[in-house]
Formats: sequence, C-alpha cells, structure tokens
Amino acid sequence: MTRHLTLAEAGRRIRPADRDAMLRARSRQSTLTKPEGALGLLEDISIRLAGMFGDERPSIDGKTVIVAAADHGVTAQGVTGYPQEVTSQMALNFLSGGAAVSVMANLLGVRQIVVDAGIAGPALPRHPDLRSIRVGRGTGDISLGPAMSRDQAIRCVETGIRLAVEVATREGPHLIATGDMGIGNTTSSSAVTAAITGRPPEETTGAGTGRTPTELLHKTGVVRRALQVNDPDPSDPLDVLAKVGGFEIGVLVGVILGGAVMRCAVLLDGFISGASALLAQGLCGAARDYMIASHRSAEQGHEAVLSHLGLEPLLDFNMRLGEGTGAVLAIPIVEAAAACLSRMATFDQAGVSNLPDGRQS
Amino acid sequence: MTRHLTLAEAGRRIRPADRDAMLRARSRQSTLTKPEGALGLLEDISIRLAGMFGDERPSIDGKTVIVAAADHGVTAQGVTGYPQEVTSQMALNFLSGGAAVSVMANLLGVRQIVVDAGIAGPALPRHPDLRSIRVGRGTGDISLGPAMSRDQAIRCVETGIRLAVEVATREGPHLIATGDMGIGNTTSSSAVTAAITGRPPEETTGAGTGRTPTELLHKTGVVRRALQVNDPDPSDPLDVLAKVGGFEIGVLVGVILGGAVMRCAVLLDGFISGASALLAQGLCGAARDYMIASHRSAEQGHEAVLSHLGLEPLLDFNMRLGEGTGAVLAIPIVEAAAACLSRMATFDQAGVSNLPDGRQS
Repeated sequence: MTRHLTLAEAGRRIRPADRDAMLRARSRQSTLTKPEGALGLLEDISIRLAGMFGDERPSIDGKTVIVAAADHGVTAQGVTGYPQEVTSQMALNFLSGGAAVSVMANLLGVRQIVVDAGIAGPALPRHPDLRSIRVGRGTGDISLGPAMSRDQAIRCVETGIRLAVEVATREGPHLIATGDMGIGNTTSSSAVTAAITGRPPEETTGAGTGRTPTELLHKTGVVRRALQVNDPDPSDPLDVLAKVGGFEIGVLVGVILGGAVMRCAVLLDGFISGASALLAQGLCGAARDYMIASHRSAEQGHEAVLSHLGLEPLLDFNMRLGEGTGAVLAIPIVEAAAACLSRMATFDQAGVSNLPDGRQS
Repeated sequence: MTRHLTLAEAGRRIRPADRDAMLRARSRQSTLTKPEGALGLLEDISIRLAGMFGDERPSIDGKTVIVAAADHGVTAQGVTGYPQEVTSQMALNFLSGGAAVSVMANLLGVRQIVVDAGIAGPALPRHPDLRSIRVGRGTGDISLGPAMSRDQAIRCVETGIRLAVEVATREGPHLIATGDMGIGNTTSSSAVTAAITGRPPEETTGAGTGRTPTELLHKTGVVRRALQVNDPDPSDPLDVLAKVGGFEIGVLVGVILGGAVMRCAVLLDGFISGASALLAQGLCGAARDYMIASHRSAEQGHEAVLSHLGLEPLLDFNMRLGEGTGAVLAIPIVEAAAACLSRMATFDQAGVSNLPDGRQS
C-alpha cells in the first residue's frame, strides 16, 4: 500500500464492508453466553466492525484521534463570540495536554495527532504530535467569495488521506476518531450541510459556542449569503468544500476516506466532523460503511447530518465542544463491542445451557 | 472505619453529598478551556462526583464490579425460558472470564468480584474472585409465600455492606458497579418495583430473557399473585426484600449502602440493580446521592425504577443482559467526566482568550 494516494486512487481502493464477515459475526453472536440480542446496540456495532475489519472476531490494535485545526475568514462577519486567535491557542492547549480531548485521549490510551491545516497567525512551535500543512492562513470569508481554491481543497483532502494511512500501520483493526478546532467553523459546517443535504440554513445553523437569538439570526443570514454568493454544486463535494468549507473540514474528509481505504473504523465526532462525513460520502459512497457516529451533538444541524448519513449516534450527552471529545468518549464502547464478540465464551465452551432448539429467547 | 457495620450503623454513617465541593466544582468548570456547558452531561456528572468524593478535583483510584448471583424459587412457575442451573453455570463463566461483564471488566481495567448469595445446587469451587455466602439455596417461591426470612434479608444486606467497605479501601475515589445473575430475577425485581413504587405489575413486568405475549401475561399474573400472597409493606424495605426479593437483590442493596458509606460512586446497572437501588434508597434516602444510573435497560419496569429514583441514565443501547454490563460500560465515561474536571487547563493556565466578562458564551 503506497502512502501517497491521490483522492481518485483512494476512492477506487475503498471496498464496501465485508458482508461475509458480518454474517459470520452475526451467527457467532448467537452462540455467545447471553440471551440473543441482549447486548442490543453493542451487537450491531460488533457486526459492523467485523465487516470493516473483515474478521468475525475483531480485535483493535490502535486508537488515534486526529484533531484538525484551521481558521475561517467568515469570523469577520461577527458569527462567533471568541476571537480568532483562540484556534491557535487551543492547538497549543491540545499539544500540552490541557484540552478536553487531550485529557480524554490520555485517560483512554488514545494517541492524539494535531494538524495545523491552516491556522492564521504565527506558525506553531514544532511538536512530535503536530503536523503542519497550513494550506492557507485561514480561509477566505465565505460570505464574500470562496473559502479556498479547488487545488487547496484537494491538498487538504489528500493530506488527510495520507495521515490516516500513516496512522493505520496495517489494514483493519484501528480506530480513528475525528476532531476539529476552528473559531467560526460551525458557520462553514452549516453552509456545507445545507449545500449537501438541501436543507435550508435555518435547519443547519445553530448556536455554535453560544449565540443569542438575534446573533443566531445574523449567523443564519451569513450562511444563506455564503450559499448565494458561492452557489456550490451539491453533486461535486470538492466544489462545496472549496466554496463554503474549511481547511480542517477538508483534512477530515481525507481522514475519513483514508480510514476507509485502510478499513479502519472511523468514529465521527459532532457537527464539523459530520459535515466532513457528508463530503466524504459524496466523494465515495462506500466510505459510509466505515463511519460510526459517536454522539448526538447539541448543535442544531447535526440532526440533518445524521439523518442524511443514516447513522444513529451512540451517545447523547448534550455536548457541543468538538475537538473529537464525543468520538474519543465513544472509543471504549466500540472496543467493548469488539471484545464481547471476539472473547466471550460460547454456550458450548462454558457448558451453559441454552434455550431448547428452535425456541427464540 | 470498622469493616463490619450493621445495617443501622451504615444508615447512620451515610452523609449527603458535599454541597460545598459541588459548588467549587461548578465554579472550576467555568474556568476550564471550553465554552461554558459545552461538555453537557459530563459536567453534571463531574460535579456530582465532586460531591460524592468531597473533592472538586475528583480522581478515581479504583474500579470494581460486584456481581451477585442467586436462585429464585419462583422459576417453578415457568416464568423464564432458561433452566435454573444456568445461574450456577454463568457464575462459573464469570470466574473464567467468558461472560460479557467479565470481558468488559477485563478490557476496561475493572476488578470483578462474584458473590454466591444463594445459588441452588452444589457449591461453586473456590476462586480468589468468589465470595460465597449462600444465605440459602435459592429463595422460596414468592407466588406461594415469602422469598426469605427477615433475618436472611438482613444477612444479605449486611454482606453487601461489608463487601463494598472491603472493596473501597479508603473513602472517596472508587467506582463500584453493581451486577446481578439469577434465573428468575426479573420476576422478583418486578414485584419489588411494584411494591415500592406503587405501580401495577403490568408496568413493572417485562420480557426478561425473552417471553412471548402469552408468557408475559402469565409472568405478570405471577408477580400480581406474589404481591397478593405476601402483602409487602412499602414503608419497610426489608419487608419487601424478604417477601418478594432475592438474595442477590439484597446483597446489592448492601453494596449500594456500603458504597455510599465509603463515599464511592455507585454505578447502577439495569432493572435488577435498580430494584436494589429502590430498596437502598428506602432504607437511607441519602444513599441516592451516590447512585449513577449507567444505562436505560430494554426491560420494561426499569422506567418505573428510574423515574422513582429521579435518575437519568447515561447510555441507551437497548441492552437487557444484566451482569453489570451496562454499569461497567459506563465506567470510562464517568472516569472521563472526572478527568476533565480535574485535569483540564484553565483559560489562564493555557493562555486561551475567554469571552469578555459578563458575556455568556
């Protein structure tokens, strides 16, 4: 497997989940020492993992969260309460371990990689966990014109693909969690979600880091203007990304596609990761087989994402932080699902009496 | 702290959660590098943990699941599809690590203790993780008379108290998850829940390990008969436990009370643990401050438990296995909540710009 795939090559390499492995997993589930279906959603997740990894006894040998950070020119429109420099300050906070996602990753044995996809301001100091690609110093203001060029959009996506391929040293048993940081990026994600799903901006725009009703109205107007000014083509995800997206959104599109190439399970965080997932699915439909929705974000607009992708999230904690916090939090649950399928004793092995043949539990 | 508390002594030693520590935790939350409230339910959990442990920077130094197993005479009424010997077979499966809860506990670094509270049939072989108290060889058939004597009920509860005190070697930072195994125990739990909450058996009786509509009707009738025959006094939880409960239910009542004495966070599993929690709260109202509802069980009747306790569960995975699986699965989430509160950087520490004073995020 070459480590430098173009977007087109990646798209061709993504295979759908292994249906045979899923069937074997389903039939193994019914031999395990528990009433049929008693582990509920965990059983469904375990069967999906079997399909992703091509193994009815899935094991997980690595866990990584990739947090992509970038700035957004649209902050000039007053769509957010925090100043733009917070993006860069938070990137440093990730690297020093003080941010929520870093604390969780550290607790749960998850490797953290931070990507400077295009932060404004001075370059971040070198750090072993930092990848600096800086496709630009913040995107253009999407309410006035495109966020970036099509070439920049491709560069973001291909960087993400390379990262995921690098992280998953071998095919299969790796969990990749997606995370984001970027002051202003709920505005871009609202525009991307509206463009791809066809929903009106009112349904895809939410409070972000916290807006009053008047401010929310203003933000919704900015999203509407971005769509009018740029007129992104929903059948061309790269066009949508370039016109109304963001550098970190593009990198996460690539992380999802690269994860799917490597047959990793990709745990999507909330709204921003969700916007990336919409674009990734648009670029390669089979990528969806590798997506797990970790949580239901409190951010309005995430619902439109989840329903378009047809994914049910695992957690519903009223969280709206981004960074990958929801995705990392769901990792132990996904691990538990895999472990139960792989390691539980069967009725025969444990000498436990099962229900009489043909009798549904 | 003596290790052999009577029930009355335990009740007197349980202090309500530390409100000052909770206030300090709440104010610390607002200094951490995230928009206010962005971690949603995790913040609420972290503040409750601060109250339990009396520490606004809660750390967790131990995690244990206590799985209590016992048999139920009411299985003679054909209320369940599995034969009674499955209780004993599953206890062995816990000890050899093949059951779902054991696989999860092993994965997540949680110590597992199995209690033979009153399994029918031959004694289990010795094992370092097994505590055999065998208050009886299965309870009496509650549809004909009491499950056990009042003395036996007290013995169960005091055993549970002793276990929790033994497990939590020092006050505060320990998580105790409750688990159960007992063919027939959803029937007893339905009777306990109906007795304590005053709901009719139709609302507290569910499918258990899997019943057809006709069988469910039969099971509901058995619960109703158990309540008529025994007439348990809802104002006297020991009376309810003795008349329609179970040995494992009694041990878990004690585990919850003992956990509260030691100021541990007690993660309640599903319906059977919930029935124990109803009794524990009845015996000592302050014990509720130490309860965390881990998941919403698919078992009908759990809803009545949660609403009586006023607890919102963390997970909703359509699980109905018992054993402590839901409680163990929620442990990393509770740990993450504590870790974020304790270890995240503040705005000042990280040099991250916060919103202007007085401005709500």
